[in-house]
Amino acid sequence: MRRTRFDDWPCPIARTTDLIGDWWTPLVMREAFLGRRRFDEFQVALGIPRAVLAERFKRLVAEDMLEKVTPDGGRAEYRLTAKGRAFWDVLAAMWRWGEDWLWDEGDHPPLVLRNRETGERIRPLVLDERTGERLDLRTMKVSRRRADD
Amino acid sequence: MRRTRFDDWPCPIARTTDLIGDWWTPLVMREAFLGRRRFDEFQVALGIPRAVLAERFKRLVAEDMLEKVTPDGGRAEYRLTAKGRAFWDVLAAMWRWGEDWLWDEGDHPPLVLRNRETGERIRPLVLDERTGERLDLRTMKVSRRRADD
Repeated sequence: MRRTRFDDWPCPIARTTDLIGDWWTPLVMREAFLGRRRFDEFQVALGIPRAVLAERFKRLVAEDMLEKVTPDGGRAEYRLTAKGRAFWDVLAAMWRWGEDWLWDEGDHPPLVLRNRETGERIRPLVLDERTGERLDLRTMKVSRRRADD
Repeated sequence: MRRTRFDDWPCPIARTTDLIGDWWTPLVMREAFLGRRRFDEFQVALGIPRAVLAERFKRLVAEDMLEKVTPDGGRAEYRLTAKGRAFWDVLAAMWRWGEDWLWDEGDHPPLVLRNRETGERIRPLVLDERTGERLDLRTMKVSRRRADD
């Protein structure tokens, strides 16, 4: 069954859902962020069926999140583009929420994000760029864009 | 075809993917954030098949992201829990990335997030809670949790 498409909806959440709704895709991107580049590296790291991985790469390249590069005499590599790198913010927000809410009380994920130089933990947090405050659902609304936005 | 489950993986991104990978789920949550509460309100707003919406509600209640409440003599309502409300950060990061990257050059989404009192735009941004800086892929790694984390 082909799922419903959201990629031409007017809402940025809907369009992003269209990408993430290809299950495995966030994990393929995660592995790219962890430095994997070759098809077989992704395949082994994730235990993902080869046909599914090929499909995911095809879409991620078409969406300009990864680029496929074949060095002279080498094997093809999938590298993050600027758009792909920016997607880390989405995965980081998923990481933080998952870390906070998807383990049982008193339990914690066995993995953490860390600064590789200082060893300090990294804790992604979503703020409003203008105010520097946490987002407040009670005062938020969705509205039409205006000419001065 | 039942898709691969990620809900017991050690990585918070994988577990969150398991939820989001149910396509429609981020949009059902979006509607909850916009104040919808009744089955029919969600159904009409999204144009989602009733059977799919029923499935999504079932899982979101089981995951404790929504609670089903039936007021005396009233119709059932689905209300956000604390865990559900916290999920807004994930959608907000999706919103921002989608806004920045999923429209053609020179084009913009027709919708914006706004403070309902001041009318000012809200622009979600992901930072590191400790340093207040943007996340930097070059200095980030995933590592095992330590006793002092």
